[in-house]
Amino acid sequence: MDFDLPEDLQLFQTLMRRFVDRELIPLEPRGELDAATLDMLREKAKAAGLWMLDVPVELGGQGLGPLGMSIFWEELSRTVAISPRDTRVFRSLVGPVLLGLKGEQKERFLMPVLRGDWTPCFAITEADAGSDPAAMRTVAVRDGDHYVINGVKRFITDARHADVAQLIAYTDKAKGLRGLSCFLVEMRTPGVSVTADYDTMMGDRPCEVTFDNVRIPATNLVGAEGDGMALAQQWITEGRILRHGARSLGVAERCLELGISYSRQRKTFGAPLATRQAIQFMIADTYAELQQARLLVRDAALDLERGRDVRLKSWIAKSQATEMGFRAADRCMQMHGGMGLTTEMPIERMWREQRSFIITEGAAEVMRASISKKVYDLYE
Amino acid sequence: MDFDLPEDLQLFQTLMRRFVDRELIPLEPRGELDAATLDMLREKAKAAGLWMLDVPVELGGQGLGPLGMSIFWEELSRTVAISPRDTRVFRSLVGPVLLGLKGEQKERFLMPVLRGDWTPCFAITEADAGSDPAAMRTVAVRDGDHYVINGVKRFITDARHADVAQLIAYTDKAKGLRGLSCFLVEMRTPGVSVTADYDTMMGDRPCEVTFDNVRIPATNLVGAEGDGMALAQQWITEGRILRHGARSLGVAERCLELGISYSRQRKTFGAPLATRQAIQFMIADTYAELQQARLLVRDAALDLERGRDVRLKSWIAKSQATEMGFRAADRCMQMHGGMGLTTEMPIERMWREQRSFIITEGAAEVMRASISKKVYDLYE
Amino acid sequence: MDFDLPEDLQLFQTLMRRFVDRELIPLEPRGELDAATLDMLREKAKAAGLWMLDVPVELGGQGLGPLGMSIFWEELSRTVAISPRDTRVFRSLVGPVLLGLKGEQKERFLMPVLRGDWTPCFAITEADAGSDPAAMRTVAVRDGDHYVINGVKRFITDARHADVAQLIAYTDKAKGLRGLSCFLVEMRTPGVSVTADYDTMMGDRPCEVTFDNVRIPATNLVGAEGDGMALAQQWITEGRILRHGARSLGVAERCLELGISYSRQRKTFGAPLATRQAIQFMIADTYAELQQARLLVRDAALDLERGRDVRLKSWIAKSQATEMGFRAADRCMQMHGGMGLTTEMPIERMWREQRSFIITEGAAEVMRASISKKVYDLYE
Amino acid sequence: MDFDLPEDLQLFQTLMRRFVDRELIPLEPRGELDAATLDMLREKAKAAGLWMLDVPVELGGQGLGPLGMSIFWEELSRTVAISPRDTRVFRSLVGPVLLGLKGEQKERFLMPVLRGDWTPCFAITEADAGSDPAAMRTVAVRDGDHYVINGVKRFITDARHADVAQLIAYTDKAKGLRGLSCFLVEMRTPGVSVTADYDTMMGDRPCEVTFDNVRIPATNLVGAEGDGMALAQQWITEGRILRHGARSLGVAERCLELGISYSRQRKTFGAPLATRQAIQFMIADTYAELQQARLLVRDAALDLERGRDVRLKSWIAKSQATEMGFRAADRCMQMHGGMGLTTEMPIERMWREQRSFIITEGAAEVMRASISKKVYDLYE
Repeated sequence: MDFDLPEDLQLFQTLMRRFVDRELIPLEPRGELDAATLDMLREKAKAAGLWMLDVPVELGGQGLGPLGMSIFWEELSRTVAISPRDTRVFRSLVGPVLLGLKGEQKERFLMPVLRGDWTPCFAITEADAGSDPAAMRTVAVRDGDHYVINGVKRFITDARHADVAQLIAYTDKAKGLRGLSCFLVEMRTPGVSVTADYDTMMGDRPCEVTFDNVRIPATNLVGAEGDGMALAQQWITEGRILRHGARSLGVAERCLELGISYSRQRKTFGAPLATRQAIQFMIADTYAELQQARLLVRDAALDLERGRDVRLKSWIAKSQATEMGFRAADRCMQMHGGMGLTTEMPIERMWREQRSFIITEGAAEVMRASISKKVYDLYE
Repeated sequence: MDFDLPEDLQLFQTLMRRFVDRELIPLEPRGELDAATLDMLREKAKAAGLWMLDVPVELGGQGLGPLGMSIFWEELSRTVAISPRDTRVFRSLVGPVLLGLKGEQKERFLMPVLRGDWTPCFAITEADAGSDPAAMRTVAVRDGDHYVINGVKRFITDARHADVAQLIAYTDKAKGLRGLSCFLVEMRTPGVSVTADYDTMMGDRPCEVTFDNVRIPATNLVGAEGDGMALAQQWITEGRILRHGARSLGVAERCLELGISYSRQRKTFGAPLATRQAIQFMIADTYAELQQARLLVRDAALDLERGRDVRLKSWIAKSQATEMGFRAADRCMQMHGGMGLTTEMPIERMWREQRSFIITEGAAEVMRASISKKVYDLYE
Repeated sequence: MDFDLPEDLQLFQTLMRRFVDRELIPLEPRGELDAATLDMLREKAKAAGLWMLDVPVELGGQGLGPLGMSIFWEELSRTVAISPRDTRVFRSLVGPVLLGLKGEQKERFLMPVLRGDWTPCFAITEADAGSDPAAMRTVAVRDGDHYVINGVKRFITDARHADVAQLIAYTDKAKGLRGLSCFLVEMRTPGVSVTADYDTMMGDRPCEVTFDNVRIPATNLVGAEGDGMALAQQWITEGRILRHGARSLGVAERCLELGISYSRQRKTFGAPLATRQAIQFMIADTYAELQQARLLVRDAALDLERGRDVRLKSWIAKSQATEMGFRAADRCMQMHGGMGLTTEMPIERMWREQRSFIITEGAAEVMRASISKKVYDLYE
Repeated sequence: MDFDLPEDLQLFQTLMRRFVDRELIPLEPRGELDAATLDMLREKAKAAGLWMLDVPVELGGQGLGPLGMSIFWEELSRTVAISPRDTRVFRSLVGPVLLGLKGEQKERFLMPVLRGDWTPCFAITEADAGSDPAAMRTVAVRDGDHYVINGVKRFITDARHADVAQLIAYTDKAKGLRGLSCFLVEMRTPGVSVTADYDTMMGDRPCEVTFDNVRIPATNLVGAEGDGMALAQQWITEGRILRHGARSLGVAERCLELGISYSRQRKTFGAPLATRQAIQFMIADTYAELQQARLLVRDAALDLERGRDVRLKSWIAKSQATEMGFRAADRCMQMHGGMGLTTEMPIERMWREQRSFIITEGAAEVMRASISKKVYDLYE
């Protein structure tokens, strides 16, 4: 038993923290970054070795597993300089579906992403199937050597810039979740169109993507028919632990730093805020809650790395960490008073963004229902 | 003892609700309203008798006291069509300081406001004197028939459009809070300048106003030297009950309406959200908490109307109602899932705005400290 | 609109408070009171006019309606000298069912209670019908001029000392809740037996009462067959507002008094607890929450007095006030540290008792479900 | 990095769980156990190898370090059959002070405890020095080869049965905390008397112990003068992690088991409680919160085992775990409705006991203040 981070990951953490402190945090006041700045950052990230982090070494990447990637997300989310769902600076994080491709599919779909020629997106959510994949309506019908796809996906991140979609659709509705399959669909395929953009309070603009009689080669099916749910689960489970759980840790960490610094310097009624118990207890609660959320996230990430079934741990890590992160941001805002409401500080942006993670990819209530169901099973 | 709203105010409430439902809510998707729309709304408000509501009947207003104004704020805040700190549609709410003017001061400063020629602003907050007026640095030094004013005010709502400031400044710092005085300062006076705008997450843009050797006639002093704190307290106390307390009721009311409607129609896992206890309990909690906050606010408003000392009640109403309103908005967002994060719905805006009211004009912690101090005195 | 208590009730409140302060609180360290002390208290209560409070004046009582009785419960519950479900000191509170009796039933069942010869109890709860009356199994079958009753009631307060039970049983199960009827059953009737006592953490010992072929005259039916649910509702609704809602106010009030007094005198780290924000905020929260719960309870009590349908308000008052009262007691215990855990202080008893009220006569979750159902109807 | 419990401790955990399930839980309905039953349990514990667990192997014990002892406490606290502060069944847990003795002190004070001839107690708390050791008044004055001790200790567990006290007293008040020393005082020494017992809501009866000119040999000083605080800290820090932190885990675990079992079988409104989201979410929250508290406690225990400074982790583990355990017990009580209030079930006892741990050996507020102070230092 050992709760210490391995030494190599401690080094990686130091590297990431330095990059965020030196390159990203200073850009925060600028708001949305322009293309030139993003290019410059990309060069710097590459030079620092912060590049294609989850890609195996033999494919030119850094070969970080889930535990390492949890450090990446934790450190990255200390800043709001780049949008929390945007990983272009470090070369789009590739994810388990593409990285699992083999043979010809690997050449056709993974390699262009690794080369930076293609941006991928993941298309699973639908209007009536947010947390409930069984309610999906998109279907792929086999027609000789092709599949013909019809349906509408909603809240798809990056769809406007994407070149290829990892799409989940029914090949056999009668089989329920076991009738879902995963396809690789080039976005330029006739019949694919981005039919709406959603303005969100986070600044993200996820899209609606319509598939209207989209005809793709049968060789674009990932794995076999019926593998869709399992492949989607890989992506979603990893996302709960990393893109939601681990990132919430960085948010809380930054909020601690900001809160401590401001409360030391800001005086009211003749004394620094830091001398007030109301403020001290906010700091204590944020710190204590952060420690436990961090243990939850790393435990889940390590289990994922070891190939264990981590669904239960991913639900717990996702819900506990995202809610903890929001409480941290909310306290930080409160401590800053009027200043915390201004866009001069990164706080209100972090606060808005963090709130969204309690909803996306499995709302708090869905997580609790899933945890409960599993726990009742465990105590049979 | 009677907890029912008087009949005339029930009628006024119906009128306000209809105006909000018919004229304002339909404008919500448009975002910030243009000048023409605002003019049109102003005409309609005037025609509906929703005009100069807190102005005495003898001056051409509707003569509503604090209880009536609490209904105004409660109903108005059911919509985000107009910014929560903007009351131009109903002719700038005038407030107790201006309405209390007499004689020549009334002619010079109140009448232009009532005629709509002038917009007033209230300048009390400073960088180091948000919740703590004693820390104020702005001073007014008597010089013959004039006062010379120096200082910087921060987070001043409407300062960019204002023609006259109600300014609080020290005339005698040695006397502490009893050394504060209230002045009427025309914004075009030499030395007055708006030196900064703050972008906030609510969309409001409060300003920094600098007073640099501003020379004003001694006749611009309101009341006597030393009356400043009492005058400011009138404005602030009323604001806690009405602009913070009562408005939070409308926010919660609207969130109930939105949540009930959406949860009835939205289906997940084969059943409407409204059939889930997690959702039902959110509705129950919001409704139950709203009832009690409404009783608190009206009790305080009625006491204010009767001339009682309502400071304690104003702190309680302010803190309890604003926090209740935010919980209501937060639950409403959660119930709407991804849709609640989009700017298509009024929810995220209501949520951001409501959060700010837990901070402005007396942060939650300052309210609690004040309540506690007073309660310890009461139980001597 | 007027939130002030009528003058006569203010006087009654003063009287009750004095009685509690002088006669009851000094007895707290003694624990359970012996018969002689109870007799002495009864004499004093009678002498003070605190006697048969809810009995109409024409029957020799004080004629207090629900609002007055809310004051009685609020003040009485400032002490733990007598058990919270024991009202013998003031002559068993009679309740709406007995007080509503007419003619011969009034002579046979109400008058002995008013004379103090009889103690009544209320028998509705069953093992599988706590919050869900429809699940009741006790039945009364008409047999000529008699009814024959079979069934088992659980958690019946005072059954050991009771002379007469107000019993709810099915006369026609097919009609559901409309098939329930109310009977008056003398406890000495053959077939009635107290078959179990429950030791509870509050010290109360409610009983199980078994009805085994109990034969009672048909004239013991209250009202008509099918009136049972309505009669039970009267008793339960009043209980939610008074015996749960109003009593929680007194608990919070006493906790405030104890907390303020102790925190002033107790020093840690060189300063009184009262100088610590953590303690101050507990006081502020308890006071602020108490004010709103009080408004809720009085609003519901007044509506009940006016004959309005108060079910929704009773659910809100019951759940909000009982939970508020427990938070108050829990904070009070926390402020007292180790001393708060000892039986020397009344705190731990108040804390245990208050917790039970979140469960009895409608658990918090049942209240929330009821509120939600009604609110969805209101916003149709 | 590895979050799995070592295999030997997994085996120990199975052993402890079996002992608790088979020998202790069945005794719960009996209430306080008589001497014969305790003797029988002691024999069984010894036979099972659950004996002198924290005593080094060379002294005949099991040699468990803090991590192992955390498993002991976690598993033991799944039952209320024996009082939570009573470890006699497993031969009084010895603790770091006695185990650290050397030479003649070891013979005189440790060996009798290990043989079972002596029961030790720990005397540090005073009336005005609960959480604040600097406020202690007990003094030990050197007089030739002796010390003369005067003072009063409060809330001393087991003092009535103890043979030897580990006493903390000032030898040099001018030095503050560095002037505290630790003494071994036989309870039969003239001048030592138990002057009061405190009845508590947990059933424990801690005592007041008065030291009136108690004369002890100078050789009874542990370590050197001034070592008192460090020695006390060892005992207290371990207690926070084990006797408070780890024990809270077992309470939550048992509450989960009880809640799941009852909610499966208990039907209301025609369906088992387990089908209600309100109940499911209680189970989910208790489980999720338990996981994170367990990680916190084990992380702290392992660090303690490795000799690291664990004060910060002990404060976090103590406060987070004890509060988590109480929430678990409170939810469990709520789920059981009326049954949860009866003494037939272990719930109300677990609930009362667990509440006390939020106060004893460092109240929640003291923990938060300590955490905050340390965190401000860390972020310098």
